[in-house]
Amino acid sequence: MEALPDLDNLETYKADKSRLGQALERLPQDAPTPEERFPPPYGVVGFGEGWWPAELLRDRFPDTLARGTTFVLAGGYDHGKLAGLLAAAREESERVVVLGFGPEAEVKIPSSPLSPYRYLRYLLLATGELELAQSLEAALKAELERTAPYVPSQENPAKLLAWSFLERTPLWVASERYPMLAQALQQVFARVGKSLSIAPPPAALEFFITALEARHEQGDPLVAVTLGTDEEIELAKEVLATRVDYLEELDPPKAKGPLPEALAYWYRLAWAAYYLALLYRKDPGDHEVLARLREAAS
Amino acid sequence: MEALPDLDNLETYKADKSRLGQALERLPQDAPTPEERFPPPYGVVGFGEGWWPAELLRDRFPDTLARGTTFVLAGGYDHGKLAGLLAAAREESERVVVLGFGPEAEVKIPSSPLSPYRYLRYLLLATGELELAQSLEAALKAELERTAPYVPSQENPAKLLAWSFLERTPLWVASERYPMLAQALQQVFARVGKSLSIAPPPAALEFFITALEARHEQGDPLVAVTLGTDEEIELAKEVLATRVDYLEELDPPKAKGPLPEALAYWYRLAWAAYYLALLYRKDPGDHEVLARLREAAS
Repeated sequence: MEALPDLDNLETYKADKSRLGQALERLPQDAPTPEERFPPPYGVVGFGEGWWPAELLRDRFPDTLARGTTFVLAGGYDHGKLAGLLAAAREESERVVVLGFGPEAEVKIPSSPLSPYRYLRYLLLATGELELAQSLEAALKAELERTAPYVPSQENPAKLLAWSFLERTPLWVASERYPMLAQALQQVFARVGKSLSIAPPPAALEFFITALEARHEQGDPLVAVTLGTDEEIELAKEVLATRVDYLEELDPPKAKGPLPEALAYWYRLAWAAYYLALLYRKDPGDHEVLARLREAAS
Repeated sequence: MEALPDLDNLETYKADKSRLGQALERLPQDAPTPEERFPPPYGVVGFGEGWWPAELLRDRFPDTLARGTTFVLAGGYDHGKLAGLLAAAREESERVVVLGFGPEAEVKIPSSPLSPYRYLRYLLLATGELELAQSLEAALKAELERTAPYVPSQENPAKLLAWSFLERTPLWVASERYPMLAQALQQVFARVGKSLSIAPPPAALEFFITALEARHEQGDPLVAVTLGTDEEIELAKEVLATRVDYLEELDPPKAKGPLPEALAYWYRLAWAAYYLALLYRKDPGDHEVLARLREAAS
């Protein structure tokens, strides 16, 4: 049997043909910055890669179209809906800003599994949330210090996570404090780690206790990964302890506040997914096939 | 090796100790009916088992609290949030109607994996949507004619589905026409079929094409189940055909309209989950453990 790649050996990183590692390292400050402020009130709508940043700001901007500025996150997979949405936004809003890729985008954010952070940071800056944008950046930088390739395996939580994900399927158990984080992790884990993971439905506790009843004695190789701490997470841990192969309790990020914390977790797991791809000897970057799909679905 | 249970033999149904089969057969007309009309405008908020019906009506009732009537679906797992929500609703609304279980519920809907339909039907009737409520009922009755236990396996799509789910994990591929249907199926499949299934994140196509890249050559036993037909589903079928063990394209329900169609699919798969539990020789009904969990999480 061939030995598994060594994550502390530079040789291993040759599989990263698309240089996603570099993009990950640069990510904290590698995002477009708006040069102007836009008239409020704000609305936001996200397609494809833009779905999560739009959801994350739903509390602040409950409307999709707004009288002031509508931000349209054109992240692909709009299935022909972008054109109609743009027409409606131009009717409704004083200003329409299209971010993303494709000919309509005035703020270019190329397709990438890392783009959710870029969209989010731009939107925060463009709507006057400078302080929050800075704490997102600080949150990612603090994670980077522990998760970058130069940090050896024993001290690197992302490398250690990659080993526990190997040949297992993660089940994301996120606190309600982080809405849609589980789905965002499912997405980045697929695109970077090339692997399947599971996000539970709402009323997740009930799901955890019932979904593994018929087959858990067969030892399906699941890793439950908890994100955050609250009463529900504690109950989930009790329920899952005897039902999954392995329980990973992520230690809390340094960041404070739901949004920086969620992004810190997401970034840590993007690194873990990156290392997992390397363990499988796969290029963690995107593949041609995704570009072709995007064309077919635009 | 012990032979697998025969779904056309009455003996098999002895495992159904909690008589969920009876509840399933009666479901189409077994739901509480409001005796009055309530003052508009309407708001709805759902906890636990009530999350899906609340989501299904989000288009019609975008607000959670409304000036007229606020419907509170108290389906458990509120983690202490019900009390505060009720206080706020009583402040805001002319009328507050609590449905579900627990001491606050004036309209009793006992805990059940089938309760989403009951909540939904009540809400439609209570808000003057008689015609839609009738077409939901008709949609379920039409499904029942094909999926009930007395319909033999070869003609019974739910029994056939149970066989393809055996020892495999379903991946729900639902048209955008049915928002949150995949999560609702994840829930009912867990509670009735006692088994794990996977709902994709938004931008699902991208997920399908990347998530199975590292390990699909190992032949993970997934069944992709498509619900609905549109351009995205067609693309998903192409992508998944070579990546999963098996592709199940559900034939469209007789019902017309997104809501009756979604409920018809849900009901057909509740039956399939029921038969799956029987194939595993498990009681498809709820277990004590769930009642204890509910207590801990209320």
